[in-house]
Amino acid sequence: MQASRPLILISNDDSIAAPGLLALVDCCPAEADVVVVAPAEPHSGQSSALSVNKPLRINSLPDYRQARLFTVSGTPVDCIKLALNAIVPRRPDLVLAGINHGSNSGCNVIYSGTMGAVLEGCNVGITSCGFSLLHHSMKADFSLSAPLVNAVIARLLEQPLPDGVCLNVNIPARIVPEGVRVCRAARGHWTEEYRKYLDPSGAPFYWLTGQFVNLEPDAEDTDEYWLARGYMSAVPVTVDQTAAGSVSDLAPRFDI
Amino acid sequence: MQASRPLILISNDDSIAAPGLLALVDCCPAEADVVVVAPAEPHSGQSSALSVNKPLRINSLPDYRQARLFTVSGTPVDCIKLALNAIVPRRPDLVLAGINHGSNSGCNVIYSGTMGAVLEGCNVGITSCGFSLLHHSMKADFSLSAPLVNAVIARLLEQPLPDGVCLNVNIPARIVPEGVRVCRAARGHWTEEYRKYLDPSGAPFYWLTGQFVNLEPDAEDTDEYWLARGYMSAVPVTVDQTAAGSVSDLAPRFDI
Repeated sequence: MQASRPLILISNDDSIAAPGLLALVDCCPAEADVVVVAPAEPHSGQSSALSVNKPLRINSLPDYRQARLFTVSGTPVDCIKLALNAIVPRRPDLVLAGINHGSNSGCNVIYSGTMGAVLEGCNVGITSCGFSLLHHSMKADFSLSAPLVNAVIARLLEQPLPDGVCLNVNIPARIVPEGVRVCRAARGHWTEEYRKYLDPSGAPFYWLTGQFVNLEPDAEDTDEYWLARGYMSAVPVTVDQTAAGSVSDLAPRFDI
Repeated sequence: MQASRPLILISNDDSIAAPGLLALVDCCPAEADVVVVAPAEPHSGQSSALSVNKPLRINSLPDYRQARLFTVSGTPVDCIKLALNAIVPRRPDLVLAGINHGSNSGCNVIYSGTMGAVLEGCNVGITSCGFSLLHHSMKADFSLSAPLVNAVIARLLEQPLPDGVCLNVNIPARIVPEGVRVCRAARGHWTEEYRKYLDPSGAPFYWLTGQFVNLEPDAEDTDEYWLARGYMSAVPVTVDQTAAGSVSDLAPRFDI
């Protein structure tokens, strides 16, 4: 690895075994060094969870193309934190995560381990971007969107994102995307969320299910809108979750 | 429980066994019904993680004052989701989380399981607020701030928060707080984050440590500033993480 080459750090939440991870390596420019640090086990829906009360292990695997591969026995955030502290040879120019097997559009960014890794890179000042394909199968076809993902990565290397802002890119499944649209996340939530079962002794247990409800299906400036029309969506995401517009509004109410 | 009384749903991330949980019940007005649904095991640093690939159990415990107590075998987000779907008798007027044993100021909101529960309530349109005491000990004294926490809860019951906005309240330790200040989260990050060990076979493992670095210690509109001066901080937090100001700025760059 040469210090003059751009360095890209890649993680995901579907684990080292997910095809989307190496599909993202395939989309990186040949002139970049790539270090992959992925969870040893799947961590979907783990958000920005980190391991506070347990030790972490690093394992080194054989290289893939121009990429060095490692696993960490923790979450996506653990992967980025430990990579920056103990694995990468120099500060990365870019943190990428994905390509996730499944959507992280709308409010799903809250729960996304993919975006947890991305926010972690962003919070230490590195341009960071997550990629997610709207297809849960491990046999999903990542090649259709590869040229556009490659183009997004090239733009990110050319010019850093604004301080404190990262990118959440979602990709429509089974088509060559029409293009990329920068937009906001559609408001929505999940509904009918648990199926109830009885175990053999008759005691109940519950399993998460449910459907995403898009509360603004006609809003043309949202990710859901453009994804439904065959475009890749790119939502700028802020690492500072302060609702800045509400600070002065709420001040009188809580003047206690 | 009477439908005419306000209903408060409470969770936390330190588990049902944490004294801060019942301390928060103690701060609720006597005229409210309270349902506590807390993780059976500690889930600090679990952010908005949820259980996607495992079943969940609900256990009922004896009442505490006017509160019904339940545990869920999952994360803080699991607690809120499952409570809303299978436990509470009607839609809560308020979702509260805490009182956390330890700070959730600055960028710690990203990792906070306490705020994971709060964001979950906010995302389904319920006024939601987290409380955290800047003291990790299980023997922390919550009584000094009880009158102010009670006052904040009363204000939240009087008037809902704006749609999509919840509140992250932090409380200075070992003093009667001077008052409450609505403010923004201080920018910062954690540094020197892992201690390296060798196991008996000589193989390395790593354990999270480190210190929070406040990048703007003199900014008078931040939570860290007011906490250092003996005030409770109340940061409005947005459930929609879109960096709205960057959408139009970034659109030309990613017009691919």
